[in-house]
Amino acid sequence: MDLTPSKLAYVPFVSVDDMMKIVNHIGAAQMIAEIADYIEADFKRWELFDKTPRVAAHSEEGVIELMPTSDGETYGFKYVNGHPANMARGFQTVTAFGVLARVDNGYPVLLSEMTILTALRTAATSVVAARHLAPKDAKVMAMIGNGAQCEFQALAFHKVLGIEEVRLYDIDPAATAKAARNLENTGLRVVPCKTGEEAISGAQIITTCTADKQYATILTDNMVGSGVHINAIGGDCPGKTELHRDILLRSDIFVEYPPQTRIEGEIQALEADHPVTELWEVITGKAQGRRDARQITLFDSVGFATEDFSALRYVRDQLDRVGAYVQLDMLADPDDPRDLFGMVQRAKGA
Amino acid sequence: MDLTPSKLAYVPFVSVDDMMKIVNHIGAAQMIAEIADYIEADFKRWELFDKTPRVAAHSEEGVIELMPTSDGETYGFKYVNGHPANMARGFQTVTAFGVLARVDNGYPVLLSEMTILTALRTAATSVVAARHLAPKDAKVMAMIGNGAQCEFQALAFHKVLGIEEVRLYDIDPAATAKAARNLENTGLRVVPCKTGEEAISGAQIITTCTADKQYATILTDNMVGSGVHINAIGGDCPGKTELHRDILLRSDIFVEYPPQTRIEGEIQALEADHPVTELWEVITGKAQGRRDARQITLFDSVGFATEDFSALRYVRDQLDRVGAYVQLDMLADPDDPRDLFGMVQRAKGA
Repeated sequence: MDLTPSKLAYVPFVSVDDMMKIVNHIGAAQMIAEIADYIEADFKRWELFDKTPRVAAHSEEGVIELMPTSDGETYGFKYVNGHPANMARGFQTVTAFGVLARVDNGYPVLLSEMTILTALRTAATSVVAARHLAPKDAKVMAMIGNGAQCEFQALAFHKVLGIEEVRLYDIDPAATAKAARNLENTGLRVVPCKTGEEAISGAQIITTCTADKQYATILTDNMVGSGVHINAIGGDCPGKTELHRDILLRSDIFVEYPPQTRIEGEIQALEADHPVTELWEVITGKAQGRRDARQITLFDSVGFATEDFSALRYVRDQLDRVGAYVQLDMLADPDDPRDLFGMVQRAKGA
Repeated sequence: MDLTPSKLAYVPFVSVDDMMKIVNHIGAAQMIAEIADYIEADFKRWELFDKTPRVAAHSEEGVIELMPTSDGETYGFKYVNGHPANMARGFQTVTAFGVLARVDNGYPVLLSEMTILTALRTAATSVVAARHLAPKDAKVMAMIGNGAQCEFQALAFHKVLGIEEVRLYDIDPAATAKAARNLENTGLRVVPCKTGEEAISGAQIITTCTADKQYATILTDNMVGSGVHINAIGGDCPGKTELHRDILLRSDIFVEYPPQTRIEGEIQALEADHPVTELWEVITGKAQGRRDARQITLFDSVGFATEDFSALRYVRDQLDRVGAYVQLDMLADPDDPRDLFGMVQRAKGA
């Protein structure tokens, strides 16, 4: 009797080690650019997607969330936690993994680490938005917050938007030094700065990406001149914002999915009916992106399930390109679907 | 430089093969009995649990669901699909896997197959309910529907309730033959039957466990005598019921979680305010279980997230007992949590 699990029983698994192999094989900047194209392609079919709000389990220490979505053919979800106090205890603030499955039979077809992949897709989403919103000739970007997301953003804007100089600032100089070190030899001119004001000097794009709930206003109104594009990444849960309300009032605001962003994004500081433009409408041409050179555009990014879906879809399509995955025996698939018990019994002899 | 992932990066994974090793090491009946104790213990702390309705993605072919819950210390969720047409195409109707995580830092601590485990926990839940609801001297059980769940139910009732005879009936005689074969040498007296009427003859417990939406009334009113306990497993999604409405009206009905059962269970055929008793109230003594010998008790079981949580908690506690698992490198855990990019870069040389 052949007791080998059938092909259907296996799900390709991309571990952290595999994901690093994939990133290093393709190149981080190139991979972000390719994921950006997947994300943009999926934003173009926005109306097709099942858009469930994320399912959150909150506790005193943080939150665990499930973010499911589906395009009718493929289903995906991400498990992700957010625990601001983790870093001080030697844990990652955010860890994640994700799954893709076939809608027609419900069988998972990919399990992947998503801590690294989320960093890539967040940067990819930022450049998708910036392609449509940032000033065309932008060469200098300020990076406020030099944590885990920083280098991915810098590389993404260098590769996709042609940013030549990145100006780093973090309340912790060690974080800035870390980012500056990691960005050596990437082709970027890296300028570590001692204050936020110094960082934004001459920048056409300001990326804010801080993690801690307590530093609630890292940009004040007088710091932001006309014409800039603000890429606001860090405000992504209730009670966590980065920008002063007055900046929001001077900006044209673009968001991923309003029902989620109004709860989690910078715009939680505004009235519930404050006008925002959905990114997918800009991408499909239904709405205008940047209108003129003096306009402040703000991408109030919180991360949405379709972006994870796009990133997982991308990884699945690269499996054979890099070959870095293993097959997990994750699904019971007896010869006779009704004979689950018999399958277990027969394994005894094996 | 030590590039080995830290201990925190690993998540124990129980594959299908591992789960079969665990079941065969402990013994299916014994394992169901032990899971039943975990389920009963968790029902006793019912009020502690985060009870979110399951998050379902419906399609023409079936449904994919995420079932999360938390007791404040541990978080768990199950991914499960239900595709009635799968069997005819050579796929399992239901496949599942699940995850446990620490609430305090959000790190997953177990990934497990749950196709087999769901079969075990469903049988375990049935005997937990029957312990409180079935006639005390029950020796004979009818099993209507002899699919994947059948043998697990039979073994569970034999082990935990002292059932001596199981009377099998299925519209497909091949399913009955399969179940009868698998139940040889288990200590049960197995009686294959040609009709549902024959199966329930002399039975104090009737377990209904059919899968197909189209056989909507497998028990009619005249088939059910006074004093029996009905363990109704198969009616577990909208439009899928097994019992004639008149049986429900003659029964005292016990359910896991009313908001879910009113949508998915047998009681979807009744008024929305039809009185039901919650199983956890019976278990904690807040409500009465079986009152007298002539009463018909009905456990309208649809499966609830806490039961999966209990089963996962049980598996986690058995990891070292059987040793059947592998460590998956699933979580990125850089030495410096802010240096995710550096971790990826350094892996290049490795």
